Amino acid sequence: MKTTRLEAFSDGVLAIIITIMVLELKVPHGVDLAALKPVLPVLLSYVLSFIYLGIYWNNHHHLFQATEQVSGGILWANLHLLFWLSLFPFTTAWMGQNHIAPTPTAVYGFVLLMAAIAYEILQLVIITKQGRESFLALAVGKDWKGKLSPVLYLAAIPLAFVSSWIASALYAFVALLWLIPDPRIEKALKKRDD
Amino acid sequence: MKTTRLEAFSDGVLAIIITIMVLELKVPHGVDLAALKPVLPVLLSYVLSFIYLGIYWNNHHHLFQATEQVSGGILWANLHLLFWLSLFPFTTAWMGQNHIAPTPTAVYGFVLLMAAIAYEILQLVIITKQGRESFLALAVGKDWKGKLSPVLYLAAIPLAFVSSWIASALYAFVALLWLIPDPRIEKALKKRDD
Amino acid sequence: MKTTRLEAFSDGVLAIIITIMVLELKVPHGVDLAALKPVLPVLLSYVLSFIYLGIYWNNHHHLFQATEQVSGGILWANLHLLFWLSLFPFTTAWMGQNHIAPTPTAVYGFVLLMAAIAYEILQLVIITKQGRESFLALAVGKDWKGKLSPVLYLAAIPLAFVSSWIASALYAFVALLWLIPDPRIEKALKKRDD
Amino acid sequence: MKTTRLEAFSDGVLAIIITIMVLELKVPHGVDLAALKPVLPVLLSYVLSFIYLGIYWNNHHHLFQATEQVSGGILWANLHLLFWLSLFPFTTAWMGQNHIAPTPTAVYGFVLLMAAIAYEILQLVIITKQGRESFLALAVGKDWKGKLSPVLYLAAIPLAFVSSWIASALYAFVALLWLIPDPRIEKALKKRDD
Repeated sequence: MKTTRLEAFSDGVLAIIITIMVLELKVPHGVDLAALKPVLPVLLSYVLSFIYLGIYWNNHHHLFQATEQVSGGILWANLHLLFWLSLFPFTTAWMGQNHIAPTPTAVYGFVLLMAAIAYEILQLVIITKQGRESFLALAVGKDWKGKLSPVLYLAAIPLAFVSSWIASALYAFVALLWLIPDPRIEKALKKRDD
Repeated sequence: MKTTRLEAFSDGVLAIIITIMVLELKVPHGVDLAALKPVLPVLLSYVLSFIYLGIYWNNHHHLFQATEQVSGGILWANLHLLFWLSLFPFTTAWMGQNHIAPTPTAVYGFVLLMAAIAYEILQLVIITKQGRESFLALAVGKDWKGKLSPVLYLAAIPLAFVSSWIASALYAFVALLWLIPDPRIEKALKKRDD
Repeated sequence: MKTTRLEAFSDGVLAIIITIMVLELKVPHGVDLAALKPVLPVLLSYVLSFIYLGIYWNNHHHLFQATEQVSGGILWANLHLLFWLSLFPFTTAWMGQNHIAPTPTAVYGFVLLMAAIAYEILQLVIITKQGRESFLALAVGKDWKGKLSPVLYLAAIPLAFVSSWIASALYAFVALLWLIPDPRIEKALKKRDD
Repeated sequence: MKTTRLEAFSDGVLAIIITIMVLELKVPHGVDLAALKPVLPVLLSYVLSFIYLGIYWNNHHHLFQATEQVSGGILWANLHLLFWLSLFPFTTAWMGQNHIAPTPTAVYGFVLLMAAIAYEILQLVIITKQGRESFLALAVGKDWKGKLSPVLYLAAIPLAFVSSWIASALYAFVALLWLIPDPRIEKALKKRDD
């Protein structure tokens, strides 16, 4: 099986997730700027999730550029990742509509954590299939970002009950870490093409 | 007509179905973990439907890899399948929001049954067009999974009124049966390519 | 401009329209079969619209197989068609939730009529660009279905106020007319390829 | 990275945005034509946004036809554009459901403005990467439409508090300006191909 249709399907799911989140921005009843005030925290959490999904789309794209064949294991590891990403609209809305209350903020982090783990599993399944000496294995290398992120989420979840602002700041910080597209795979791809 | 656009359209519909189901996870009003309790059964039925749709996407993909041309009959048999799959979000939400009550659980099974029949029809229409000695006909072979599943659904529907947990367990069991990607077509495809 | 991206975009919009209609099937509060009763007319109108959108997707596909280049005119004629099709979920839900009341049934027919006209315009724009002697012009020929449908919709709209069942039957009849895939273009395509 | 997957993802997001806007056309409770009256302003603002999104899709398509490679900067500039476009359903519904009240109309214009700026940034990032003497840089040329539009939006936002009809007329006027597909890039593309 080629990766084309798996990529197209994942793109479709990601495009829908990123867009239906906006349906949680409930149209306010009032007609002045003050009516937008309760929308603001929802908008902010929407921005954060939008960036996260953009990062996942970007990394997913890189990952499958370095993958040639899809096995059953890769297919289900990919669906597993999409499952956790599909919960983003729910946790985003819950956190946003309650002014970043502790529990919703912790649950938001939990879904971030599970998505990060799902991505690591997907990467591992692909590398295992290709072999430890494969192109992707070397390109990913030590993968400090992929290993640091779950640790930071794990720290943020209990911290949400101390201050949900610290937890949110940690989520934003991890997003910033990833915002810069991963140069490892890109560099390796370039090398291979030369 | 080539299969490309039909596959892309089906992928789109499946991606949307799998994602809009999440809209039925209503954001709770409370802000503690207890507020998530009524969401849990909806989440569980969501997981089950997510896996089912993943299986359908996977099998659909395999089926059309072994198909080269689309006739009017194939096109409508495919839309017929998509129709029953499009009812998944409705039955999933009804079952989930009512703690797996007997009638919603039976109706959930009815839609599973109709989707399974629609898939068998689609497979039959393709094989009929290609001929009994065709590649796909031989690859599918006796198709015991495809024949067993409707029987199990048919058993689960009345059983839902005895115990909706038994019915749900049967649905989960059939999903498990299919989770392992169908090696028949894949093996046959490999043989053909060699 | 090639037709590929226009087809992909149209496919996306059609896949979403056909799927979000199902969101209007509101999950009932009751848990017995009687609770499904108010859902039934919505389901029936959903089936009708599903078939119509399937027909449009099918014909759209045939039309663009006989088209090679996209001009600004074709692009906007296509968006015009998508606009009217995008109103299907709205009219379908209005008609279905009110047990096929006269006005919603007439408005449903009005949107069908506008979509049919939009399709004719799109076809005309393409033929005009390709020339009266072009392949598509000859393939479409007299196009009696395309000319009869708007007439039947026009008749059904006032008839909805006499009996909304007659109007609905007319809509179903036109759908049946089209359900058989248009052999003209397919035949002509085959001839051309030979 | 090739532009194919970025275009497909953007198409998906645009197709979803353009279609979920229709979910804001709430099905009326009444069953006569009068019940459609409150829907009318929502429909009108839907038409305006539909045309705008059609224009963006069209221009986006032209832009990426003149682009060959995607860098990290282009990717994020594109996601930035999609973010502002994803807010269209929200502002469209707010403006439409409140009979074009001043503040919602001004906020609608603000999102138009931000989308226009995001588009200019995207264009700039691409041109910067390709070089000032590149094909796209010459094709875009002085880009008076792209420079006039933000100015008109900026004028319309405060004018919305004088008369929201003048502001809306300005939005419609800018849409009309763009409705004619940009001949610059198309002409230049043709020249290059010859």
